[in-house]
Amino acid sequence: MRVTELEYRVPYADTDRMGIVYYANYLIYFERIRNEILREAGLPYRILEEQGLMLPVVEAVCRYKAPARYDDMLSLKGWVSEAKGARTRIECEVYKDNELLVNGYTIHAAVNAAGRPARLPETLIALKPEA
Amino acid sequence: MRVTELEYRVPYADTDRMGIVYYANYLIYFERIRNEILREAGLPYRILEEQGLMLPVVEAVCRYKAPARYDDMLSLKGWVSEAKGARTRIECEVYKDNELLVNGYTIHAAVNAAGRPARLPETLIALKPEA
Amino acid sequence: MRVTELEYRVPYADTDRMGIVYYANYLIYFERIRNEILREAGLPYRILEEQGLMLPVVEAVCRYKAPARYDDMLSLKGWVSEAKGARTRIECEVYKDNELLVNGYTIHAAVNAAGRPARLPETLIALKPEA
Amino acid sequence: MRVTELEYRVPYADTDRMGIVYYANYLIYFERIRNEILREAGLPYRILEEQGLMLPVVEAVCRYKAPARYDDMLSLKGWVSEAKGARTRIECEVYKDNELLVNGYTIHAAVNAAGRPARLPETLIALKPEA
Repeated sequence: MRVTELEYRVPYADTDRMGIVYYANYLIYFERIRNEILREAGLPYRILEEQGLMLPVVEAVCRYKAPARYDDMLSLKGWVSEAKGARTRIECEVYKDNELLVNGYTIHAAVNAAGRPARLPETLIALKPEA
Repeated sequence: MRVTELEYRVPYADTDRMGIVYYANYLIYFERIRNEILREAGLPYRILEEQGLMLPVVEAVCRYKAPARYDDMLSLKGWVSEAKGARTRIECEVYKDNELLVNGYTIHAAVNAAGRPARLPETLIALKPEA
Repeated sequence: MRVTELEYRVPYADTDRMGIVYYANYLIYFERIRNEILREAGLPYRILEEQGLMLPVVEAVCRYKAPARYDDMLSLKGWVSEAKGARTRIECEVYKDNELLVNGYTIHAAVNAAGRPARLPETLIALKPEA
Repeated sequence: MRVTELEYRVPYADTDRMGIVYYANYLIYFERIRNEILREAGLPYRILEEQGLMLPVVEAVCRYKAPARYDDMLSLKGWVSEAKGARTRIECEVYKDNELLVNGYTIHAAVNAAGRPARLPETLIALKPEA
């Protein structure tokens, strides 16, 4: 299992009046780490799209265990847990120091420019654990 | 089952370069409908907080079936599906015209000002289906 | 001078840990009122774009006088103050009850699908004060 | 003049259906660079707040010259241009490669925990050009 990591500093913009990171923002953190997973694999999502392949999200799940706060330096971790046919699942975790704050995953469908199901690129399939 | 509805017009701000509403924004739509569920029940969340009760999100799930787009007038629907002890679950749906675009739910823990588990208010418990 | 108005309820999402609406969000409020100005004039921005005209922002100015807070029902007001050739300026104000919280404006260039300067539509030019 | 720099990778979340970074997001970029200006000066804003001083924005100005796009690695630059009494002005610029995409500034009032005008910290005053 190949884990990608990315550091992220929490701006004021991400917090809410409870003094913690607003829950929807973690889905943006998930996107940031997904971008890096693909970049590390040599297949940036921007390039995928230029080649006519898109990976829209079909499901997102997020579990909130402890809050992140303004100015925290977070560690975002992510990896491909499933990739078969036209569907992939990517796991995401958000840490502060060594404490797991949030985890979850997104499921993506591969579609071509016409919006039709398409095969995942081999590079992405090769990222799943058993591969 | 008491369903609360709210109309919402999609601004440019909510869209992404795929031309559709960015996936994290639906969690904000879910919050908008949750606010109205509590307001309709006579217990606005702002008042709850002033009384020392908070309902932080512990889990969020979102399923994306069809995209919303700029300037769409969406119908947000929501209802309390579970409410027991210190935990409640709220279902959310996003429609355009009569098409279901997105559904999901959030699970919330009731905590007091000290961050300790607290009993849900009776008004909220009374909203669950079997009540 | 034709003033367009729109009500907007502040969600938790828009606040920051200072307990007030985060400053960048007012530019989204400005967009919401601009959308309604054009809609009221019979020329929704979505239609403008479909006709090949875009109005990208070239300058935005925002002055913060008093904070808006969670659950506030705001009144957003806006009007076209200048519209000539390929450029227009739209004024925006945010009120709570009758108190002005924020004001400002955006300046937009009219460009065609090729990104070239284009004439503003007559409908928009007709909205400026002296017209 | 002491210029602080910060790199920032544009996520999908920041773009809109025009395919470019939505205009309000630059104010968040401005915040990111302001945070680093203060951190570099040895006075992180989080610490300032813990000491009872806040710097709410009273005015923001942003000029959009060229668009940033998804996956761009931007260079955010900022510096203190004015700092006197209870008021400071911070300049911000956003570059891609060596092209200036956006510039602007924010003006901040220093206030204490009671919301009263307060003197800027000497560390911040010392950052202005002539100092």
